[in-house]
Amino acid sequence: MVSNKIYVVMGVSGAGKSSVGLALSKALKLPFYDGDDYHPQDNINKMRRSIPLSDSDRWTWLENLNLLAKGALKKKGAVIVCSALKEVYRQRLSKDFTAACEWIYLKGSYELILERIQAREGHFMPPELLQSQFNTLEAPKNAIEIDVRASITEIIEKLEMTFSEKKEFGLFGLGVMGKSLARNLARNGFKIALFNRHLEGIEEGVATNFKENFSELKEAAAFDQIADFVNALETPRKIMLMVNAGPIVDNVIEDLLPYLKKGDTLIDGGNSNYKDSKRRMDYLSGKQIHFLGAGVSGGEEGALTGPSIMPGGNAHAYPAIQPYLEAIAAKGEDGKPCCSYIGEEGSGHFVKMVHNGIEYVEMELLAEMYAILKALNKNTEEIASTFESWKFYSNSYLLEITIDILRKKEGGTPLVEKVLDVAANKGTGNWATIATSELGVPSTLIANALFARFTSSFKSQRQKVASIFKSNAPIQTIEEEDLLKAYHFARIINHYQGFQLISEAAKTHQWTINLSELARVWTNGCIIKSELMKNLVSILEESTNLLDHPEIQNELLLLKPIANKVVASCVISEIPISTLSESVNFLNQLKTDRSAANIIQAQRDYFGAHTYKRIDDSLQKNHHSNWK
Amino acid sequence: MVSNKIYVVMGVSGAGKSSVGLALSKALKLPFYDGDDYHPQDNINKMRRSIPLSDSDRWTWLENLNLLAKGALKKKGAVIVCSALKEVYRQRLSKDFTAACEWIYLKGSYELILERIQAREGHFMPPELLQSQFNTLEAPKNAIEIDVRASITEIIEKLEMTFSEKKEFGLFGLGVMGKSLARNLARNGFKIALFNRHLEGIEEGVATNFKENFSELKEAAAFDQIADFVNALETPRKIMLMVNAGPIVDNVIEDLLPYLKKGDTLIDGGNSNYKDSKRRMDYLSGKQIHFLGAGVSGGEEGALTGPSIMPGGNAHAYPAIQPYLEAIAAKGEDGKPCCSYIGEEGSGHFVKMVHNGIEYVEMELLAEMYAILKALNKNTEEIASTFESWKFYSNSYLLEITIDILRKKEGGTPLVEKVLDVAANKGTGNWATIATSELGVPSTLIANALFARFTSSFKSQRQKVASIFKSNAPIQTIEEEDLLKAYHFARIINHYQGFQLISEAAKTHQWTINLSELARVWTNGCIIKSELMKNLVSILEESTNLLDHPEIQNELLLLKPIANKVVASCVISEIPISTLSESVNFLNQLKTDRSAANIIQAQRDYFGAHTYKRIDDSLQKNHHSNWK
Repeated sequence: MVSNKIYVVMGVSGAGKSSVGLALSKALKLPFYDGDDYHPQDNINKMRRSIPLSDSDRWTWLENLNLLAKGALKKKGAVIVCSALKEVYRQRLSKDFTAACEWIYLKGSYELILERIQAREGHFMPPELLQSQFNTLEAPKNAIEIDVRASITEIIEKLEMTFSEKKEFGLFGLGVMGKSLARNLARNGFKIALFNRHLEGIEEGVATNFKENFSELKEAAAFDQIADFVNALETPRKIMLMVNAGPIVDNVIEDLLPYLKKGDTLIDGGNSNYKDSKRRMDYLSGKQIHFLGAGVSGGEEGALTGPSIMPGGNAHAYPAIQPYLEAIAAKGEDGKPCCSYIGEEGSGHFVKMVHNGIEYVEMELLAEMYAILKALNKNTEEIASTFESWKFYSNSYLLEITIDILRKKEGGTPLVEKVLDVAANKGTGNWATIATSELGVPSTLIANALFARFTSSFKSQRQKVASIFKSNAPIQTIEEEDLLKAYHFARIINHYQGFQLISEAAKTHQWTINLSELARVWTNGCIIKSELMKNLVSILEESTNLLDHPEIQNELLLLKPIANKVVASCVISEIPISTLSESVNFLNQLKTDRSAANIIQAQRDYFGAHTYKRIDDSLQKNHHSNWK
Repeated sequence: MVSNKIYVVMGVSGAGKSSVGLALSKALKLPFYDGDDYHPQDNINKMRRSIPLSDSDRWTWLENLNLLAKGALKKKGAVIVCSALKEVYRQRLSKDFTAACEWIYLKGSYELILERIQAREGHFMPPELLQSQFNTLEAPKNAIEIDVRASITEIIEKLEMTFSEKKEFGLFGLGVMGKSLARNLARNGFKIALFNRHLEGIEEGVATNFKENFSELKEAAAFDQIADFVNALETPRKIMLMVNAGPIVDNVIEDLLPYLKKGDTLIDGGNSNYKDSKRRMDYLSGKQIHFLGAGVSGGEEGALTGPSIMPGGNAHAYPAIQPYLEAIAAKGEDGKPCCSYIGEEGSGHFVKMVHNGIEYVEMELLAEMYAILKALNKNTEEIASTFESWKFYSNSYLLEITIDILRKKEGGTPLVEKVLDVAANKGTGNWATIATSELGVPSTLIANALFARFTSSFKSQRQKVASIFKSNAPIQTIEEEDLLKAYHFARIINHYQGFQLISEAAKTHQWTINLSELARVWTNGCIIKSELMKNLVSILEESTNLLDHPEIQNELLLLKPIANKVVASCVISEIPISTLSESVNFLNQLKTDRSAANIIQAQRDYFGAHTYKRIDDSLQKNHHSNWK
């Protein structure tokens, strides 16, 4: 026991308070008191004459119990049984020691308890009396609820677990990612409480079963009741939510709120939309609950062995959470954790969204490289070898897993050849494209990679079109070395666009984001970890705009003509390479000092009188002309 | 006067009811009655003894007035003056002829009216009595409000205008588009009421001034008070809103609502977001007010001479609106109006958004053509001639205005060369890109054209990058005829994507949209009218998917290799042609029967256990593998 406590077992007559109270006092080695023994003589006289007690009769009695409890607290504490049906009775009883009072509420239906009373030998209770108790009962909010149908052994076990040392960190939601993070936390020696909802016939005993299956969770406490889970945590509480993004997060917050106290912190570790995280932070601020929106990357395995973590939100709440997140995060080459406070509001989820956008592009580029090599008549095994040879120049986690994938056999043939070519997406790519549209930033590669997935999903349309547009295009020779260089060129442009999107969003939302530190967080644990990312840590330290850095400039100058050549050859060969192609087109556009956008402005002024600015007007006024 | 009416002049004592009533009866040539002359004897006795009248005293009196009015209605009507301070008095007075009763409310402050009374010779009224009248006064909602400070002449003028024949169609908001539509409606012989808000010192007398400046508006009524504007319209009312898209539309709806009646129709003719239009339709349905969201294209000039109109929303409300919209719309080659009911909910604004997306692409493609021709060392005059020669093959309104633009001189040099190359955008392009992301439809060209504008806006970044990436790229020769064919190829893909986006949205939202009819609406009046659009009317009638039609297939088959060649040459030459290039890449992707998306699905399954489907599993179950 951490400190002295008064355990009050409460509920209606016949709920089994005495049996539970006695068993608990034995288990906890604490004195046992029956509340009924402390009525003043007047009350006893009234009860003898079957006169119902009024609330004012009860005050003296509850004061007696309050004094009894306070006396017991000076020693080791006590177990007291007392019906305590109303909130006001409970307040009187626990006056001056609310924090040291644990309420145990024996809960059961009227029918059930009536039946139990009637089954007891030598007891008789008129049903009206029980009904009147149920009418009086105000169910407590901060109590441990005990189903009276459970056996005494089960009840005492549950109570012992609940009252054993409070847990320091709570994990809410045991899906794939939640489970991995839970084991990761436990392996790091943290005392954790686990929660998973109870869904009749669908999710039952999830937390308990999970705890039992993994030895590292021996010390963890498992729950499927929110009140018990929250009460098992030391205050101020730290609870990480690992539930599906979307309205579920809001529902879970509402479910938790009645049990939370000022100063508690919620961390949303799901893939939430950054706008929702900002909204939730503001909402919870009004209730003095802290909120952090943390992007977590690394998939199931990363979450277990060390993910990359991007927390954003209430900066003053972060220090209390930092030790936990840093301990479970992946470690970079310098040994530092791949976790860092990103910035204000929803910036943690924003950078996670951009992370996923960059990931979409990296994946699409590898798919396009595969398409090119296939068009050049390489078989799957040969493509794997080519990719293997690329590691020395442009290695990344995604390249490595693609090599594994290409080499995976099923009955002698590559398994990947059996995979249906329809790519799905789960939201963050769309959000990144929407964000880029809303912010006015040209993250063209993310949009292209997203659209490539969309196009893949129109499989039957593709088959129909393919039957008409049979390709007779002349396949151009492409040197593998050139292909590697074009690939690396596109990867640099991808990272440039990704960091620019963050940089522009930070300006718009007035977030302070350290891009170099962010790149460092992404050097390990996450899906886009790569050699390039490691280089970017120091490059972004020197210039936050990648294209301002001589190293990037020189590399691009060298690679650009080669990328041009590869793209041109693919276009002539009719190999679909939207994203690779856009990397070249984008830089062509960005390096155009005087572009053709003057035509667009003149057109807009012509038909819509939208006005235009002039290159020879230093005041940058709006002009309008009659163009006819 | 359209029909017999009772005009009740109401207000507190001393507001000037008698003078206004007498002058009005003279102007309208109607008998005049002073309400006070119709009190029963009991009331007169009470008043003589200075005993205040109770409400029950008033019922007989009001019944007298009611009978008087009903008698008068059988002849020509009448003007009655009567304080009628409470709503319940007004209800009694106008019982059985509510619709034929026009309330004229003389409005003034307590101080002002007290002063006027005290200034009258021979009159004395204790201030307490006037104050008690103000306390009793319930300002009427459906009355014409008259400021008592105005002169009798001004008041009668205003009332005459208000009571002259009701107008059939209301136009709310006189910006550039509103004004043009108003003149267009008037030119078509419609009797219209015009409204523009009154903003002290900023927008004053806008409607009146506008009416005075254009002879075609002689018969129009101009207002700057919402109540007067709405009351000047015959019921059920038809009101077209021409205000800025966004929250302003909601505010205007709230401002109008107190004056609207069941069965009235609001038409939002602004560039509203289709989701807002759906929301507003649902909101107003609850109040039995009809709502149509109508896209209007054609700019200032089109709105005046005949725009293309795309109404969507309450289908049953459309027939009443149809004659107005069809009359003012542009006419196609067959003489039919370029206006057609598009479909349910926000579909009118959705197709307008896609129209603007297609427009973005058409504009960007012309800008890219200009960029290529410039890179090939053509001067502005020569580019104009080239474009002129393209009319025979790929003519469009946008091509024509671009020729005008290129030929416009300022002091001997082309004006367009002075226009700053930073392209702006006003929302619909972003919305189209967002819609495409949300719907999972690859409208890649719209996104590319939007992003090209974004990139152009980073002018200083472009200048910096240009100084480093000076182009030494070898400029490839491109035949002008090939360029024209590549341009036309990209235009077909643009239109394919645009109509597909509508088609997929219609599936998602369960809208019934006739694409051929929509193309017909777009053959004239709008910014994207073109020869190609005219061809699409019959093509879309035969197949709603453009790529299913042999004519489109044959044209693309012919153009594709040429487009390939042009794109490849531009890439090698480093001419920025993102959108042209994407048209080729997109078709390459779409015509790929077996794509490289299997790689992406395998990667997703590898790191995220997202599962994949197999080409050899006809049940299309989800599979998961250990890929290592």
